[in-house]
Amino acid sequence: MKLQLECIACMLRQIVEAGRMATDDEKKIRRIMDIYAGMIPEINLYKTAPEVTEVIHTLIKKELGVEDPYKEYKDKHIQLALDHYPVVKKIIENADNTIEAALIMAATGNSIDAGLNLKVNVVEVIESGMKDGFYFNDTSLFEEKLKKVRKLLIVADNSGEAVFDKLLIEELLKLYDLDITYAVRSRPVLNDITVKEAREIGLDRVSHLIDSGCSAPGMLIEQASQPFIKAFAEADIVIAKGQGNYEGLSETDRRVFYLLKAKCSVFAREFGAPQGSLIFKYL
Amino acid sequence: MKLQLECIACMLRQIVEAGRMATDDEKKIRRIMDIYAGMIPEINLYKTAPEVTEVIHTLIKKELGVEDPYKEYKDKHIQLALDHYPVVKKIIENADNTIEAALIMAATGNSIDAGLNLKVNVVEVIESGMKDGFYFNDTSLFEEKLKKVRKLLIVADNSGEAVFDKLLIEELLKLYDLDITYAVRSRPVLNDITVKEAREIGLDRVSHLIDSGCSAPGMLIEQASQPFIKAFAEADIVIAKGQGNYEGLSETDRRVFYLLKAKCSVFAREFGAPQGSLIFKYL
Repeated sequence: MKLQLECIACMLRQIVEAGRMATDDEKKIRRIMDIYAGMIPEINLYKTAPEVTEVIHTLIKKELGVEDPYKEYKDKHIQLALDHYPVVKKIIENADNTIEAALIMAATGNSIDAGLNLKVNVVEVIESGMKDGFYFNDTSLFEEKLKKVRKLLIVADNSGEAVFDKLLIEELLKLYDLDITYAVRSRPVLNDITVKEAREIGLDRVSHLIDSGCSAPGMLIEQASQPFIKAFAEADIVIAKGQGNYEGLSETDRRVFYLLKAKCSVFAREFGAPQGSLIFKYL
Repeated sequence: MKLQLECIACMLRQIVEAGRMATDDEKKIRRIMDIYAGMIPEINLYKTAPEVTEVIHTLIKKELGVEDPYKEYKDKHIQLALDHYPVVKKIIENADNTIEAALIMAATGNSIDAGLNLKVNVVEVIESGMKDGFYFNDTSLFEEKLKKVRKLLIVADNSGEAVFDKLLIEELLKLYDLDITYAVRSRPVLNDITVKEAREIGLDRVSHLIDSGCSAPGMLIEQASQPFIKAFAEADIVIAKGQGNYEGLSETDRRVFYLLKAKCSVFAREFGAPQGSLIFKYL
């Protein structure tokens, strides 16, 4: 998915947001804004949003001398999600279709995303997620495929939602004989998950945890590590979580189950879904 | 009120918003974004938001060759507000304190504002406005003053809300012997009201309608016309509506009743009120 005019404006907003998280010195934030302003005329709309966002966040980290401006928010959101782990586990276990419920929860977790909204009421998000379900729902197709295959690759997105990804993986392993790989970002970018947070959550205990090689907030195949390239090629099913991974992987010719919440209005328009809706779509 | 870092980012967002309203040609919008990007390092944080916003919207109008990009939205919002006129009139007439209810409705109308949110459910806005009331409420002080004085000046803001301003004026004239002046923008900017829309709504039949001389989306005293300077000096009470007029007039030493909805998070933080709250405050 190509960059939109709105993305260029959103990135300037993200600079202020990430800057305020990392420093009280407005002059430093202003300097980054001015540098970005100088780059705006050069931004090529044939690029994807993750490509440009990576450049911006690398600039922020370099200028502020902070490796992970979103660290505090990630920790807070992981803790929030962990606090709700027992409730969500019960919701899944009590559902008619536990796989669908686990997928809904994993997509719902996608709205615990500091990138777009720093104030999140997790309980409200969980409840409305279960009530509304998926706007595009390819669960049946997914279940059919699960019966026939073994290798599943999940391309992870944000840190907080990964807690619910673990529940999804546990539910899948209860019902199917699967070999699951979980691919995370190579370095901190936005509130995305890296090996560090994935280990804290315990994803290495339920899956093969790999570094995707990508440090953009969306999987860019040209940055892929050898382990990712192998997993991507060998996987019978790929699930990619979040808008960023769609923006990156939709540029490849590999078919993928996209599991996400359409958070941004531009993305929702492009995807043909209402803003805020949950999506599980094989494309 | 001085410009914040967030305002600089919000203006880039407004360029895309206004641009898309006025043209389908993305290249033209991109050109305006690039020009604005070149201006960003020069934006002085000691200016007010209306000063800078005026420059941006003048640039948009010039580049696109469109005098009033928000025309369609203004017309739509005025019509929406007119459709709800009978309901709102009844709400006011049935209230315990009709003046307070009319003030709440006039502030509520302030959220019919294309500048921050293009999708507005008027009924929801009206209902929650009456339910929540004012976060800062100087109605008693206002009523005390009304008993002793005659000349009232209202500094208008957006087009849609002016329909409810007319109801406020009618309610005030029922109970008090007042001479009311209604001051509007000199030229189209954002979705703000000018003499043209004010006449369509019929504000000239209930007040002295004047051109404020200001074409920024917030009253800047240095742009004031002679009629405005006279009305501002002679008024016993000034009501200024909306964030933009606060941002401009709070720089003067004249005391004013500010009537608004704190729509933007930066403004709300500055004002010490929750985002989305209604405010009627004498400052």
